[in-house]
Formats: sequence, C-alpha cells, structure tokens
Amino acid sequence: MSILIIVPGRDVTLLKNTLMHELPDTPIEVWPEVADPSQVEVVVLWKHPKGILSDFPRLKVICSMGAGVDHILLDESLPPQIPVIRVVDPELTRMMRKYVVMAVTSIHKDIFAFYNQKKSGKWFQDFYPDSDPVIGILGMGELGKDAAMALYHLGYKVIGWSRTIKDIQGIISYEKKDLKSFVNRSNIIVNLLPLTPETRGIMNEDFFSQLPLQSSIINVGRGEHLIEEDLIEAIENGRVKSAILDVFSKEPLPLDHPFWKYDQVIITPHIASITNQENAAIQIAENFKRYKIGQPLINEVDISLGY
Amino acid sequence: MSILIIVPGRDVTLLKNTLMHELPDTPIEVWPEVADPSQVEVVVLWKHPKGILSDFPRLKVICSMGAGVDHILLDESLPPQIPVIRVVDPELTRMMRKYVVMAVTSIHKDIFAFYNQKKSGKWFQDFYPDSDPVIGILGMGELGKDAAMALYHLGYKVIGWSRTIKDIQGIISYEKKDLKSFVNRSNIIVNLLPLTPETRGIMNEDFFSQLPLQSSIINVGRGEHLIEEDLIEAIENGRVKSAILDVFSKEPLPLDHPFWKYDQVIITPHIASITNQENAAIQIAENFKRYKIGQPLINEVDISLGY
Repeated sequence: MSILIIVPGRDVTLLKNTLMHELPDTPIEVWPEVADPSQVEVVVLWKHPKGILSDFPRLKVICSMGAGVDHILLDESLPPQIPVIRVVDPELTRMMRKYVVMAVTSIHKDIFAFYNQKKSGKWFQDFYPDSDPVIGILGMGELGKDAAMALYHLGYKVIGWSRTIKDIQGIISYEKKDLKSFVNRSNIIVNLLPLTPETRGIMNEDFFSQLPLQSSIINVGRGEHLIEEDLIEAIENGRVKSAILDVFSKEPLPLDHPFWKYDQVIITPHIASITNQENAAIQIAENFKRYKIGQPLINEVDISLGY
Repeated sequence: MSILIIVPGRDVTLLKNTLMHELPDTPIEVWPEVADPSQVEVVVLWKHPKGILSDFPRLKVICSMGAGVDHILLDESLPPQIPVIRVVDPELTRMMRKYVVMAVTSIHKDIFAFYNQKKSGKWFQDFYPDSDPVIGILGMGELGKDAAMALYHLGYKVIGWSRTIKDIQGIISYEKKDLKSFVNRSNIIVNLLPLTPETRGIMNEDFFSQLPLQSSIINVGRGEHLIEEDLIEAIENGRVKSAILDVFSKEPLPLDHPFWKYDQVIITPHIASITNQENAAIQIAENFKRYKIGQPLINEVDISLGY
C-alpha cells in the first residue's frame, strides 16, 4: 500500500518529506511517478487532473491538501463511499484572519484612495469617512466564524450568513432564506463560502442590486462564487465602490482581464491563505494512522453538503 | 465666569453646542470672540496661538480637545499650578486601533507592493512573505496598550516600550533604558508615544541603525517624534522597507516634501484618530462640574511627565 501526492505544478518536497518522517513504513510517491497504481490506498490532491481517480482501484481515503474540497467533489471520477478529508489548520485560519482584517480595515480607512491621490500631493483631510460600516460575512464555517469574531473584537458591526443559524456572541446570524436581508444590510461583503453547486455564482447581478450604494466586496472564497462581469457592471453603475479580490474564475488572472484596469479593484494572487505543507502532512498522517486501526477520521467532509 | 474654546481654523459648532446643552447656565465662547477675558475660567485648546493664555487672569482649568497635550505644555505662557486635562475617549481609541491594525496588516501582507505591481498585470504568487513579524509598539499608554492587545489577539508577536515596565498578558515589555534591545527585535515599529522633550526626535539615525533590515515604520504619534531626513536615509540604504505616516513635522505636508516621491511611503492626512467633538464636550463638561464642586478631575495630565 502507498500514499500518492497528486499536486501538479507545485513543489511538494516539504509535504512529502514530512509524510515520510511521520509514516516511515509507508511508501510516499509523487505523481506522475507511480510504481503500482493498484497499491495506492490514499491520495493527497490539489487541482489534480480530473478523471485520474479511476486509475486507483484500491483507493480508501482521499485527502485535500487545503481547506477547500470543491476541486475534488467536482471530479466525476470520484468513487462513491470513500471518505474525503480536508485540512483544518490553525495557521491557515490565522493567515486568513489577517488578510480579511487587512482588507476590511483598508477599505474602511480608504487607504487606496489616499494612496492614489498621493500622486497629486494633496492633503484631503476632509474626505475621511467617519462611517461605521456593517461587515457581512458570507459563510460562517471555520474561517468565516474566526474572521467574524476578529472583526467584532476590533469594534466592527458584523453580520453572518450561513445555511443554518449560528449562535455567536455579538454577531447577528442570517440563515439561507434570508440572503436578501443580509445583503441589504452589508456595507462590506467578505466571501468565505465553500464552493458548492448552491453557492456557485452567488455574487451576481441580483446580489449586487440588493447591496447598499457604495459597498465593497472582498472575495477570498473561490473565483467561481463571483460573476466577474456582474461585478464590473456594479462598479460601473456605482453600486460597488471597491473590491479586494484574491481568487478568480481563471488563475493566474489573464493579462487582458478588465479587473486590472480599475484603481478601486485590488488584486492579490491567491495568497490570502496558503497551506503549510508541514502542518497538512501531520494532519494527513494522523488520519492515515486512524484509518489503519479503524478509528474515526478527523475533518471528514459531508459530501452531500459539499464541505 | 465662562468657558472659552480656542481652536483656530476648525469648525467647533458641535463642541460648542454640546457644551451649551450640558452646561446651560455657563457662557460658552469661541475665540477670537471674547466678551470679558477676566471672566474666562476654563479654556478648551487645540493648536492655540502660543502666549495667549496670559490674557486670562482667572484661568482655573485647561482642557485639550484631544488626547495629546504637547501643544499645551510647549506654550511658555502656561500658568503654573493649573490642572491640564486631556480627552480619553473610547471612540478615539477604537479609531486608532483600526488604523494601526490596517497599517500593520497592510505592511505584513505587502498589499502596496501588489497594488504597485498591478500596473504590470503580473501574478507574483512567489513573493508572498510567510514571515511572522514582531510588532514593536513605542508608547504603552491608553492607545498603545489597546493597539498592542488588538494585534496580539490577531495572532501577532507584540512587544512594547514604555517609561516603566507594563504587565500585559502576551506582550513583552521593555523599559526606558532598553530601547536598543526593543528596536533590535522590532520588524514593524508603531509609534504611539506622547510628545515630550524626552521623546522628541526619538526615531532618528541611531534608532534606524538598530532596526533589523527591511523593517517598517508606522507613525501615528506626532510628526516631531521622527527625524524625517533620517527616515529617508534609512529607506535609501535599505534599513527601512516601508512607512505608513499619518503625522508630520509640518502639516499639511508641503508639496515639495520628498516623502511624496516614494512608492513605499504611504501618507494619510492626520486622520488616524479624530476627536469626536460631542464625546469631548461631554467629558469637558463633566470635569467642569467636578471643578465647581471641588471633586477630583478626570484624565488630568502629569505635567512633570508630559502626558
């Protein structure tokens, strides 16, 4: 039996070495090098070639290298009844928290407007907004709940939208059916939803039309949550004032994409939260040991919910 | 007896109206309109003309309109033995907290570098720093302590420098004599010191030479804490990577000041924390009532320390 890492285009040396250290008796291979596909019982995936899973007849556990599993659940060759595991890493959560706080405070303090106006050498004390924006968090899972609490403790008004009502001190919770009321109240939207068939394209023309005027969008979920041309239209018609985007429907964002043109659109190259391969490997090894002795796995995904 | 507001060049309508509402039986005047200087017992000051205080022979209490009192203590006409009061407003503290968090996270996530490189339409995932910077807070009073705790709770390593050792959970405290060791350890400096003869020019060539390479400076104290030409030299020689500055030795910052030229210097027009005139007036009125009945005043400044 063996563990196979299928992470095209990325250096996974640290992931591999840590797995070898944690599981000295188990062969660890990195795709496309595979001695015997019939020996592969565990795969570790990130943006793997779709359809490849049917090459491994004895697959028992599928691990995502990160927090998201949409890349796995969208693969039609995903065998049924096999547990899918994701990484829940406090370091990942902390990174995301800092990025979201950076994005919200930068929008609130209008720092990019000051930066752009710097070229003119002007001193615009008057335009400083003393507003008190409502921050609307889309998705109240591990990352969303953590970011919401961090923003609340900084002194922001925070509301959250999730499939079911959450009871979190200081944060007003909206459930699935109340998306419209949630959007109506949000001056700054932070998207931290998992990507599922139900959340795909959730930030669309209809969504933007419900926002208060001069709102802002922070997308750190998946590019596919956002209909990019609808955001551009919302910026053009003044509904949306600014956006900080870390994920895109196509990455790297193509050079001719209209987002590059807008001063009020900040682009970061999918760096809000990057898997620490060492931490991920330790968690994957722990699940491997649990699987070997028949114990319940940790951080297993509910495939019917998609996260 | 009367209260006189001496705040040149600023609209103080809200301050005046709130004082009139809180103290309906006391005349409230706004300089330069003064019916009878000998009736003035309380002055409210912000950047008042130096020397003017000797015009008021019956002065009993001096109030700053904001948290800083350096503009008052530097006035040689300041009568001895008269209490000086400052504003300690939770809203002021919250505003400063959000600004400092914005500045630290923006530097940590290198957002201005991404923003500048946007013009080239490039996708630089590789340059993302996964560092864990040490945040050094200069000044651990009301504002410094609050910012330090907010950063600590976000997951940053935070150290603080103050006249005497402070016991704050999670934050390593350095006292006056250990400035060099404090600076040696700080990757991002946040200045929240009061301006006193001892702290004037504290961020100078010697200070910068002690910083780790590629450090950053956030100045939200006073422009006079920073020797501006020494910061430029430190940027030029690579000791300092970036700076976010809200205060300057001359404000508005002159159009020909070299700071405007540097992409890695972010300039905001003294907006990190702006006095809420309503809250300030309520606190000044409270002290006025206490003075009238001989009760101890709140937020009185220790003139020998300068804050």
